[in-house]
Amino acid sequence: MSVSLTDPSRATLETFENPFPSRDYMIETICPEFTSLCPKTGQPDFGTLTITYIPDRMCFELKSLKLYLQQYRNHGAFYERVTNLILDDLVAVTAPRWMRIEAAFTPRGGIRSTITVEHGRRP
Amino acid sequence: MSVSLTDPSRATLETFENPFPSRDYMIETICPEFTSLCPKTGQPDFGTLTITYIPDRMCFELKSLKLYLQQYRNHGAFYERVTNLILDDLVAVTAPRWMRIEAAFTPRGGIRSTITVEHGRRP
Amino acid sequence: MSVSLTDPSRATLETFENPFPSRDYMIETICPEFTSLCPKTGQPDFGTLTITYIPDRMCFELKSLKLYLQQYRNHGAFYERVTNLILDDLVAVTAPRWMRIEAAFTPRGGIRSTITVEHGRRP
Amino acid sequence: MSVSLTDPSRATLETFENPFPSRDYMIETICPEFTSLCPKTGQPDFGTLTITYIPDRMCFELKSLKLYLQQYRNHGAFYERVTNLILDDLVAVTAPRWMRIEAAFTPRGGIRSTITVEHGRRP
Amino acid sequence: MSVSLTDPSRATLETFENPFPSRDYMIETICPEFTSLCPKTGQPDFGTLTITYIPDRMCFELKSLKLYLQQYRNHGAFYERVTNLILDDLVAVTAPRWMRIEAAFTPRGGIRSTITVEHGRRP
Amino acid sequence: MSVSLTDPSRATLETFENPFPSRDYMIETICPEFTSLCPKTGQPDFGTLTITYIPDRMCFELKSLKLYLQQYRNHGAFYERVTNLILDDLVAVTAPRWMRIEAAFTPRGGIRSTITVEHGRRP
Amino acid sequence: MSVSLTDPSRATLETFENPFPSRDYMIETICPEFTSLCPKTGQPDFGTLTITYIPDRMCFELKSLKLYLQQYRNHGAFYERVTNLILDDLVAVTAPRWMRIEAAFTPRGGIRSTITVEHGRRP
Amino acid sequence: MSVSLTDPSRATLETFENPFPSRDYMIETICPEFTSLCPKTGQPDFGTLTITYIPDRMCFELKSLKLYLQQYRNHGAFYERVTNLILDDLVAVTAPRWMRIEAAFTPRGGIRSTITVEHGRRP
Amino acid sequence: MSVSLTDPSRATLETFENPFPSRDYMIETICPEFTSLCPKTGQPDFGTLTITYIPDRMCFELKSLKLYLQQYRNHGAFYERVTNLILDDLVAVTAPRWMRIEAAFTPRGGIRSTITVEHGRRP
Amino acid sequence: MSVSLTDPSRATLETFENPFPSRDYMIETICPEFTSLCPKTGQPDFGTLTITYIPDRMCFELKSLKLYLQQYRNHGAFYERVTNLILDDLVAVTAPRWMRIEAAFTPRGGIRSTITVEHGRRP
Repeated sequence: MSVSLTDPSRATLETFENPFPSRDYMIETICPEFTSLCPKTGQPDFGTLTITYIPDRMCFELKSLKLYLQQYRNHGAFYERVTNLILDDLVAVTAPRWMRIEAAFTPRGGIRSTITVEHGRRP
Repeated sequence: MSVSLTDPSRATLETFENPFPSRDYMIETICPEFTSLCPKTGQPDFGTLTITYIPDRMCFELKSLKLYLQQYRNHGAFYERVTNLILDDLVAVTAPRWMRIEAAFTPRGGIRSTITVEHGRRP
Repeated sequence: MSVSLTDPSRATLETFENPFPSRDYMIETICPEFTSLCPKTGQPDFGTLTITYIPDRMCFELKSLKLYLQQYRNHGAFYERVTNLILDDLVAVTAPRWMRIEAAFTPRGGIRSTITVEHGRRP
Repeated sequence: MSVSLTDPSRATLETFENPFPSRDYMIETICPEFTSLCPKTGQPDFGTLTITYIPDRMCFELKSLKLYLQQYRNHGAFYERVTNLILDDLVAVTAPRWMRIEAAFTPRGGIRSTITVEHGRRP
Repeated sequence: MSVSLTDPSRATLETFENPFPSRDYMIETICPEFTSLCPKTGQPDFGTLTITYIPDRMCFELKSLKLYLQQYRNHGAFYERVTNLILDDLVAVTAPRWMRIEAAFTPRGGIRSTITVEHGRRP
Repeated sequence: MSVSLTDPSRATLETFENPFPSRDYMIETICPEFTSLCPKTGQPDFGTLTITYIPDRMCFELKSLKLYLQQYRNHGAFYERVTNLILDDLVAVTAPRWMRIEAAFTPRGGIRSTITVEHGRRP
Repeated sequence: MSVSLTDPSRATLETFENPFPSRDYMIETICPEFTSLCPKTGQPDFGTLTITYIPDRMCFELKSLKLYLQQYRNHGAFYERVTNLILDDLVAVTAPRWMRIEAAFTPRGGIRSTITVEHGRRP
Repeated sequence: MSVSLTDPSRATLETFENPFPSRDYMIETICPEFTSLCPKTGQPDFGTLTITYIPDRMCFELKSLKLYLQQYRNHGAFYERVTNLILDDLVAVTAPRWMRIEAAFTPRGGIRSTITVEHGRRP
Repeated sequence: MSVSLTDPSRATLETFENPFPSRDYMIETICPEFTSLCPKTGQPDFGTLTITYIPDRMCFELKSLKLYLQQYRNHGAFYERVTNLILDDLVAVTAPRWMRIEAAFTPRGGIRSTITVEHGRRP
Repeated sequence: MSVSLTDPSRATLETFENPFPSRDYMIETICPEFTSLCPKTGQPDFGTLTITYIPDRMCFELKSLKLYLQQYRNHGAFYERVTNLILDDLVAVTAPRWMRIEAAFTPRGGIRSTITVEHGRRP
């Protein structure tokens, strides 16, 4: 399987204005169909991303999130790097009051890993 | 499917007097049969609302809550707006000491979202 | 169904001395077979009561609790009132350091409710 | 809620040619977001349809099935009638070797029902 | 608790015409809120009834089934007798092609029982 | 722990007349609190018995079943023998049309066993 | 069933030296096969003990714990007393930095209880 | 996403000799990480394949199966075609006594499908 | 990890006389702690064996079964061979009326397999 | 089974540089296939390790972790010692900001234990 090493572009991500910016509220989005490639072996990895945030002025649009995540399908990166990259991209386009991403990968060699990264302090 | 864009009316909501106003206690109401329409595509959305509150002087009546929520059946609004609107309406008619609404929607395009909004500070 | 509106009597409740009053400890009692009547329609309601407390000098006896709760079988009262009444009765006979009752009722019209009431502050 | 009593039209259903007609094989399609109205009370009903069939020359297309089922959203019919109607429509457009529909509705008044209808004999 | 020993009356049960008598199909109705009294001790019993049948000319109406079953609330009878009685009554008013009732009672003294009775032979 | 090796007596088992002998029907009784002793080591064994039968003229009474099974509490016997003995005793006192006992024991040394014995042929 | 009322002896409990006393760490031991007798009726009670502690200089040995708990098999005591007694005995032999016992008993008369006792303050 | 329409090659599949050809026995292989593309929209599909067979002279090797299935990652085909193709390829290389493939795809538009295809008659 | 290729010896297996040879009955033994080595890579495999049989004159003893299975701990063999070998050994020492072994292995590379082998015909 | 008493070597553990050292984030790794030997009886123990940490400059590599843990396969040590040893080794090679290991072992004699050890204070 040919592995792309160029980082996916955050330009695909679209946003819309938070309809209730006066209130702190939470949006949790669960994406159980995330897949990328291992940069060492070229083998596919599979995981479930749970993105939780308190929007400030902007929310990300769900269909554009799906297309953004599909860029990882033939992209090679380790678990830790992938999860931190996605957080950086989502923070860059929405500038949230708080955001957390939990990425739970399926077992390899009888071992499975979950990476949890956070931006800001939960109010 | 023809989509109504007029906001549902909170006039349908009936209340009764809190029988134990001297005590802080919690009421949780789970409505797994909530449905509305996507304002962009006209396609139905489905979700489970969990409404939790500490009543002050008034409680909402369950049958009138059901009828109020049924107004969203042919109404078009995005997840974030719907959840905040319902919170505003329930707060307006019951003026609770604290209230939280969690709206968990079913998957679309392999992605599902839950919106959690809160009024006041949980004692 | 003929509905009784006289409140059940707490006289049925028996107690025994707490065998370890020097220690704060917790007793949780789960009663999944609670049933009462709706005072408006006469229709039966069903629920699960979870009673949790830290006893002071007295504990309630389980068989007498069962008989006390059976008095609600043909008694008419709304969810909120029933739950607060039972807390008042159990507090009156045991004077606990802390007590909480969670009453989870089965769905009606696609909606289900849970009432949680508390006496004192959990140490 | 205004209730339509005209039967939904099977004209919305689209089909495609069975790619492997030489082999008896089974297709199971689960639709957990079915909703219609009670013709007596106008109240919404909710259910999960499980459609299983062995195609002959034609298969039904999934997006058109979704649109066909959405016609029931404001349509009034009892459980038994709805389930048999949908079977008649799907049989009319696909002429399958065998088909079964199981419709599991959510509880009303503490009681829930499942209707199972079948066309032809499972080979 | 005062125990009635007169058998409930099947007169409460209402029926409607089977809308598709030309087809053998199955109706399963689950009633998790059944309760009766033990004729020996007067103590309440609780169970879940699952009624499955292939209607011939008549179906039973669900609301009238609920009222019929509520007659057992203060009625005293053993598990085996209750289950057979209900089958006899439902068969008498609907004359089905086949019917089965499974009654699963909650534990007493660490032991729980399920009674399954059948009328006719499943086609 | 002192182990008794005398077989429990079936004299404790009480029966009552089958109220509907004209109909073949099934009674399933689940006893999750069975315990006996290992005759070799004196260590306790724990298991769940599921007794299923079609009564002929007699049914066994549940409270007497509980007392009968309690005789095994300090009795020593291997899994296979215990299960066959109980079947023999229940068949001797009820002479059923058919009976099956499934005894599922908890793990020992990382291994768990279930013994299933049957009397007669299921109609 | 003959009920012994002499309290079990803690002399059966053996200990070993904590191999890492320099570190606060937690040991949780789950015993789902606990059984004792009701001192009033002589009937067996069944429960699951969860013992959690932070050892100081000594840990209890698991096989000796099993033998210690088996002394309750023919011993009569109420739930609250049994749970507090076991805590006292385990604290006496191990002098832990913190210990908690949760004893979850199986249902009797449709009601089940869990007793939670604690020694010291969890660091 | 660029969609390949050339069918994956069965040449990747490796086999080994059935070590016990004298005995009919069953091998079930579950692959929860199958993914392909929709030929119409280019969007990814995800599913779980359960392959069950009775080998004759040859078994397929698991690592080569994984590589064979990865060829579908950027390949476009509808559910029904994909499932039948995989069966044809596995039958071609192993010539089993019997084989069945069940392909359960994740929900799209609130609807999910499972395709089951079979080769030969299960002995 | 050094891999032994000599087959484990069935001499470890002990048997006892079937106490009820006059009756066909079933014994199911579940061993969730089976482990062996992959002969190619030397990596450990893990699985759950479910052994079900109808004994004739002999039953296998559970402790000796545990010791027999532990011989596979450092033994190298593929799934299919291991499962058939164990069946051959157990059949050789007990000569049962019927026996089946189901071996469910944990996932490797996202794929998991279950092998089911049978001796004789289930009566 | 021959039991090795030499402690496994941490030299097998490989690390890589934390790609995002500027951010506190959490890595959870679950290893359900851990096995060692009891030093007293030589019998195998089985457990699930959950390793959670906040990396500082180094992360441990997953394949090397698997090989490190496999050294325990024929190694004899008690639960408490094994868990603390593994923590010491992982802390020695990664010097994390915080680390916790939870080791949940399978039941022995009807009793199961979980050991939880921690290094540093969770930020």
